[in-house]
Amino acid sequence: MNITWIGTGVMGGPMAGHLMAAGHSLTIYTRTKAKAEALLEAGATWANGPAAAARNADVVCTMLGFPDDVRATVLGDAGVLSAMQPNALLIDFTTSSPSLAVEIHEAAAARNIQSLDAPVSGGDIGARNATLSIMVGGAPDAFDRAQPIFETLGKTVVHQGPAGCGQHTKMVNQTLIAAGMIAVCEGLLYARAVGLDPETVLKSVGGGAAASWSLTNYYPRMLKNDFAPGFYVEHFVKDMGLALDEARRCGLQLPGLAMAEQMYRKLAEMGHARAGTQALIKVLEDMNRAALR
Amino acid sequence: MNITWIGTGVMGGPMAGHLMAAGHSLTIYTRTKAKAEALLEAGATWANGPAAAARNADVVCTMLGFPDDVRATVLGDAGVLSAMQPNALLIDFTTSSPSLAVEIHEAAAARNIQSLDAPVSGGDIGARNATLSIMVGGAPDAFDRAQPIFETLGKTVVHQGPAGCGQHTKMVNQTLIAAGMIAVCEGLLYARAVGLDPETVLKSVGGGAAASWSLTNYYPRMLKNDFAPGFYVEHFVKDMGLALDEARRCGLQLPGLAMAEQMYRKLAEMGHARAGTQALIKVLEDMNRAALR
Repeated sequence: MNITWIGTGVMGGPMAGHLMAAGHSLTIYTRTKAKAEALLEAGATWANGPAAAARNADVVCTMLGFPDDVRATVLGDAGVLSAMQPNALLIDFTTSSPSLAVEIHEAAAARNIQSLDAPVSGGDIGARNATLSIMVGGAPDAFDRAQPIFETLGKTVVHQGPAGCGQHTKMVNQTLIAAGMIAVCEGLLYARAVGLDPETVLKSVGGGAAASWSLTNYYPRMLKNDFAPGFYVEHFVKDMGLALDEARRCGLQLPGLAMAEQMYRKLAEMGHARAGTQALIKVLEDMNRAALR
Repeated sequence: MNITWIGTGVMGGPMAGHLMAAGHSLTIYTRTKAKAEALLEAGATWANGPAAAARNADVVCTMLGFPDDVRATVLGDAGVLSAMQPNALLIDFTTSSPSLAVEIHEAAAARNIQSLDAPVSGGDIGARNATLSIMVGGAPDAFDRAQPIFETLGKTVVHQGPAGCGQHTKMVNQTLIAAGMIAVCEGLLYARAVGLDPETVLKSVGGGAAASWSLTNYYPRMLKNDFAPGFYVEHFVKDMGLALDEARRCGLQLPGLAMAEQMYRKLAEMGHARAGTQALIKVLEDMNRAALR
């Protein structure tokens, strides 16, 4: 297949690489050309902008940062929809707004183009190892058509419903993580404040009813003051904002998510927008300076 | 060993049974004698009250409901400490106040009695299968002495520090669960409100960064409106109250725990004190009636 890939950052880069390795012919565009070098050396073709990249593609894939990037890249005057062939397929892997996914779906349908929203979870490691969970919204026949691509990139591929449902499912994923991260920070701070050894505590609490992926993966990094990004604070802030927007739209109150979003915005304001999400501990430490001596 | 066991409810009953099966001679007291029938039929000796039960024991174990029960049973006029032999060992398995554990430790030491606080996690299933996590506070030699008992009852046995540290570790465990339960409820409600199929959503989100024991075990029960108790709401309310008391004592702010404790108190007020903790979904449903139609 002729596949166009737009956005070759920490997630998009390895994902595009897997498609090339699977034998597809790739055309690439990304904002910072240096980030595409490895793929270009491996034989991908460079294009000067989204429209130029999309012109001859069977499938156009986007993996960008923020909904505004998606809007400009897909719906803009020189966006991919302006140039794609009829009957081509558009797949947006960005975690973005469910409402924008519906808007794109309708704009694409008006030009006889199929589209899927297909956000992923699993982080940079999942992208590199092709073990992502891919949550897909769109028409069933478009989903079937995209299966070879999804199977090359991920381990858990589930069609969640019509356009927007992939994004909505990712919002559920982020909502589950949000208040759970507060819990991990609070457990660690309690342990410290009362004078327990936090590593020994983990031996008691890590394997039972308190167990979580966040506890296993982030609590030890918090202990070591290792705030290197697996997942950027600024992206999590975006995701939680999107989930809260959608919740507001349907009159839904999610106080745990709202609390987490406020704490993470505070964390970004403290200068940690490009830290990993485990840096949340800094907000709770800041709040509790006296108790921690 | 001559072991006295006080409190033969849903946790204490099977735990005492394991000790009998391991060949120990058991004396039993519990508030509601009917709950001790199976153990008495299996050969345990009944005693009329804590002091009578404790008189000839090498080790006295308590597994009760609330700190007030522990205080009365251990420190009361006719409590076990009033009757225990010097050099005997007291082990309290109840999840109770860390401060009370220290108080008991000191009262016991004044009579030349050793004591350990040893709350457990793993629920009724862990008690029946002897797979509990046992979190122990007290002197190292008392811990060594109790090892044969702990190994008969649990899978993960960790000495966490001096008196009170077992209880503190259990507080960390409950703090980790608390805000995490809010997250599970909110993820499910978001899925419902936007029209996703919650079972299909779990296929996408259950195995990655959003994974948790609570998600795996409680989300499906919430879906089926199965509120049978694995762990009682009223006991979780007690535990979170204890953790917040200790946090207040050291000037620690834990907003996620505080939010969960308020929601669970509301749940108890709604009449669900004896439901399982997964009934928290009822509080968030109540808050969101309009959005869920």
